[in-house]
Amino acid sequence: MTGTAHPPRLPGRPRSQEVDVAILGAALDLLIERGASETSIEQVAQRAGVTRATVYRRFPDKTALLIQAIESVHQDHAPDALEWPDLDHMLDHWATYLSDPRNRRMLRRLYGAVDDYPELLRAYRDSHGGRRAVAEHATLRRSREHGRLPRDRDLNVVQEMLSGAVLHHLGAYADTEGADSVRGYFLAILRQVGCRIS
Amino acid sequence: MTGTAHPPRLPGRPRSQEVDVAILGAALDLLIERGASETSIEQVAQRAGVTRATVYRRFPDKTALLIQAIESVHQDHAPDALEWPDLDHMLDHWATYLSDPRNRRMLRRLYGAVDDYPELLRAYRDSHGGRRAVAEHATLRRSREHGRLPRDRDLNVVQEMLSGAVLHHLGAYADTEGADSVRGYFLAILRQVGCRIS
Repeated sequence: MTGTAHPPRLPGRPRSQEVDVAILGAALDLLIERGASETSIEQVAQRAGVTRATVYRRFPDKTALLIQAIESVHQDHAPDALEWPDLDHMLDHWATYLSDPRNRRMLRRLYGAVDDYPELLRAYRDSHGGRRAVAEHATLRRSREHGRLPRDRDLNVVQEMLSGAVLHHLGAYADTEGADSVRGYFLAILRQVGCRIS
Repeated sequence: MTGTAHPPRLPGRPRSQEVDVAILGAALDLLIERGASETSIEQVAQRAGVTRATVYRRFPDKTALLIQAIESVHQDHAPDALEWPDLDHMLDHWATYLSDPRNRRMLRRLYGAVDDYPELLRAYRDSHGGRRAVAEHATLRRSREHGRLPRDRDLNVVQEMLSGAVLHHLGAYADTEGADSVRGYFLAILRQVGCRIS
């Protein structure tokens, strides 16, 4: 810390945003590559091409930085992607998302850090998972109304099952699975619940 | 036990076994507490009360040590626990297992390390998970034969669903959930598959 007061940041605003983007991007990359416990502010600074002091001036600690990195990426592919007219579209979206190795690895990192950095999974759920869950529930409810799911299914439980199916897929299937294969996996799961879908 | 009845200890074989037990126990504790990447041979030696050289004489590296620690604990509660006369007994067993915070944390550590130490989850599956999967499949098949599961259910897929349900529970529920609550969770899941069980 220099101790000098913050200089008036008139001309630097855009540059400052670029620095933010670089830092958050580097943090997210390192989280995905190495996991939260193996990521340090030092490494983030190095990869972003800034000094540690620059990082610390913006983010009080590693956890706060990683939380913002997670939130920033999930603000990007946000609202529009989270509405599906029907189950088929929902499955297509999941299949696309889960056939991207980077997404898979990020989810594994968040769940893998749940004992040491529970804030990260919470940030993901708050910024993205929660809205996704609402959209999923709406899609499942419409499917049940349209007779594609048996009337007596408990949608909250079905949703928990599907979340579990995602986790199982992340751990038991290779990251090289294509979207078709991922889609087939979820189709098979939904059929066990009595879902009529092809 | 006093040890007086035992023949005098020949040159160190039994003591050597004690050292093994201490090292493997310390390794497992650290894996559960801190995770694989935050565990070092140094820490294991310290906790087991031996030198690093003693550890390295028995285990070439950290991964090999952690693998043996996982295998050793799963050889303990082995064959007898892995046969269930029916679904109810299987659920009881799962509920007991998954209401123990130490088991939950260990499973999370294995899945959480899947990108950096895939050998650990593999060791768990080879030493325990594989046999458990066989026992589960047999139990599900009998349940279907007895009409408790619809005939057209794909048991392999149901099994994947249940594995996913375990993972979801590990991440979404508190480690303080009692066995009854865990059992209720799996009951609800099984009912969505059309399982007749109370």
